Amino acid sequence: MAESLRIAIAGLGTVGTGVVKILQQHHDLIAARAGRPVEIVAVSARDRNKDRGVDLSSYEWVDDAVSFAGDKQIDAVIELIGGAEGTAQSLAGQSLTAGKAVVTANKAMLAHHGAALAALSEKHGAPLFYEAAVAGSIPIVKALREGYAANEVAAVYGILNGTCNYILTRMEEEGAPFDEVLDAAQSAGYAEADPSFDIDGIDAAHKLCLLTALAFGVKPDFDKLDVSGIRHITADDVFYAAELGYRIRLLGAARRMDGKIRQSVAPCLVPYDSEMAAVSGVFNAVYVENDFAGHGMLTGRGAGEGPTASAVVADIIDLCRYKNGMAPPVFGVPCTALKQADWMSAGDVTGRFYLHLVVLDCPGVMADISAIMRDHNVSMETVLQKSHDPQNPVSIILTTHPVARSEMEKAVEKINRIKAVAGDVTLMRIERFE
Amino acid sequence: MAESLRIAIAGLGTVGTGVVKILQQHHDLIAARAGRPVEIVAVSARDRNKDRGVDLSSYEWVDDAVSFAGDKQIDAVIELIGGAEGTAQSLAGQSLTAGKAVVTANKAMLAHHGAALAALSEKHGAPLFYEAAVAGSIPIVKALREGYAANEVAAVYGILNGTCNYILTRMEEEGAPFDEVLDAAQSAGYAEADPSFDIDGIDAAHKLCLLTALAFGVKPDFDKLDVSGIRHITADDVFYAAELGYRIRLLGAARRMDGKIRQSVAPCLVPYDSEMAAVSGVFNAVYVENDFAGHGMLTGRGAGEGPTASAVVADIIDLCRYKNGMAPPVFGVPCTALKQADWMSAGDVTGRFYLHLVVLDCPGVMADISAIMRDHNVSMETVLQKSHDPQNPVSIILTTHPVARSEMEKAVEKINRIKAVAGDVTLMRIERFE
Repeated sequence: MAESLRIAIAGLGTVGTGVVKILQQHHDLIAARAGRPVEIVAVSARDRNKDRGVDLSSYEWVDDAVSFAGDKQIDAVIELIGGAEGTAQSLAGQSLTAGKAVVTANKAMLAHHGAALAALSEKHGAPLFYEAAVAGSIPIVKALREGYAANEVAAVYGILNGTCNYILTRMEEEGAPFDEVLDAAQSAGYAEADPSFDIDGIDAAHKLCLLTALAFGVKPDFDKLDVSGIRHITADDVFYAAELGYRIRLLGAARRMDGKIRQSVAPCLVPYDSEMAAVSGVFNAVYVENDFAGHGMLTGRGAGEGPTASAVVADIIDLCRYKNGMAPPVFGVPCTALKQADWMSAGDVTGRFYLHLVVLDCPGVMADISAIMRDHNVSMETVLQKSHDPQNPVSIILTTHPVARSEMEKAVEKINRIKAVAGDVTLMRIERFE
Repeated sequence: MAESLRIAIAGLGTVGTGVVKILQQHHDLIAARAGRPVEIVAVSARDRNKDRGVDLSSYEWVDDAVSFAGDKQIDAVIELIGGAEGTAQSLAGQSLTAGKAVVTANKAMLAHHGAALAALSEKHGAPLFYEAAVAGSIPIVKALREGYAANEVAAVYGILNGTCNYILTRMEEEGAPFDEVLDAAQSAGYAEADPSFDIDGIDAAHKLCLLTALAFGVKPDFDKLDVSGIRHITADDVFYAAELGYRIRLLGAARRMDGKIRQSVAPCLVPYDSEMAAVSGVFNAVYVENDFAGHGMLTGRGAGEGPTASAVVADIIDLCRYKNGMAPPVFGVPCTALKQADWMSAGDVTGRFYLHLVVLDCPGVMADISAIMRDHNVSMETVLQKSHDPQNPVSIILTTHPVARSEMEKAVEKINRIKAVAGDVTLMRIERFE
């Protein structure tokens, strides 16, 4: 059998420990699949004495992970430290420059520095793989880069954050408010003590950035992405969406239209009988619209030790088969072909919308709202009014036919100024995957 | 840019024509993704004069496709002729022996001769790729061979035949009988004039064979596969399944239990809210249970020009990146590691079952049935009896708790012999993906 692939693992948190476990437990199976054995030669982590439940005694322990880049006995560096900059970025950059392959699960680093790292990868003939950075166990990077490589992609949609999907699923199942379900998710270990990275959509946005780059052959650009999270979703919204035949999902969506690309992360209404609506709990999913293959969808576990480590090890196995300079390009096409995208502004996008208003005087206010909608060419599809006690505020739910977002937002701005409308209108896109 | 990959296409039916279209239309994109251009140098098909809607004038036309194997200007042969033996088998075998890569969509050939062709591929360092042979556009071969390569697979389930899924979906939507929906499917071009290959499960079985080999690292063995199709499914079965919270799907299923492997194709009841039940119409899906990654599912178009050709071209793009002998092994592990499976017999498998009986004298017969069930340790979960006109036959639907299939079948045999039971009991497995 061929020589071992000698790897160093930087970061022994949940994912790093999982990688060690898989490589130990499936050593022979992996050697058979990879065509050569994978040998861990060194590891690095903050706490040397922590019991991680795996035997690390035969690996060299290194305090400064960045030193892996200069270590001649190492073929590939597995970066599982995290963080967009700092040690992770130094290690990845220096390793690639030294001609070493890099496997990473670091979406933040790639969303912010992906184009620069891809250039280093290409210049030095050192593969840069990151299956674990997007949607955990789901082989979506491979699917876009290789499986659908014969296609131009028209759009890619993803449920990319398990924490948000868990919260939205529980809110629907239990009719419970956001805060209560978030508390439960934190207790169950499905949400961090500081959950903002997840629930404000940042984590999903990092992942979407990479999907956009892969799908359309453009440089990842985190700054050209509109993000909104799920904090403002109420139990009422979940209830009314269901009444109308929809579920609410935090959707990362990237679409090519008229040569421009639009990418956004936002809670959307998806039809109850759509494949996306069927993705519940902590699961992730990515839906791809191809020109020849038609649409395809992949679902699976998006986080956790086993699922994420499985994706890291798949990348390591892939590394074993490519000679220098022969691995697939980082974002599907060589850096020279990687375009600076022409981004479409949010307002130019046409969509269907869901509006939720709380009004104090229903009959009077409807005339005002209708007039505003007419003035902005917003055509209503359904109007739903649930309670009708004249003494109390009433919820009105509107859905629209397709309309430019800019017009929709102008209308909402005017509706917010109507005196009888309490608070702000909740506005969400309806995504029917048409 | 590196030298072209020079290919010859054998067979210019729907899929072959689609491959030409994609390679022409996406020539530059494919060159960027593959790292080198793909050049069609020769084609072969029965009818030279047929208008296929693509310009074939710049390709050499060859009457005997097998001659591609000896043509030094050709790097890779794309076999799209079909048929388990004959020209397809000769072409594949001789091309691999000559060290040429082979890409094929031919599931019948691989189901019957996959192990022998894999051995040739390995001996001569010539890749053999077949993404298009299983589930059309869905990159499931790649997912099992590479994406989930870090895992031991426990089970793989698939909706692998779009014609059957279309028929079952329409039967449910319209409450229509099998024959009527089959007629409509034939008119719509979703079923062949002779539909037996599809509706009797043979096509799905060919595909499942390959999934079994990939998932478990065993030699594909079509003879060790129990197949039943959907001809006997009645509108009543579809209706009663729905009443009980299930949909009927033709499921290819392979599972490893106690070191043995069980593979079968049969119509099964799947829970209404399962991901499999959500796969409707001509779509295909494959569900994989991994030890580390957890379960994953891939869905997409399983047939048709664009989807199947997309998978063929993905394989061609992959070929461009592997040097001789470096491509992933045909069934995920080298032939030396490919095991002769220890197959589990049907009777040893434990499952839940659905039984549909038509009885003439309900009260009397229930006591007999209950006694038979008790004698064979079959524990009933639900009993459903829909009409109750004593003058007419009555349908009784039973579902069971898990029981060995051998016991279930013995019980059914006895029930069939009860005089008051009209015709034969319909027996289907309930698959809850537990």
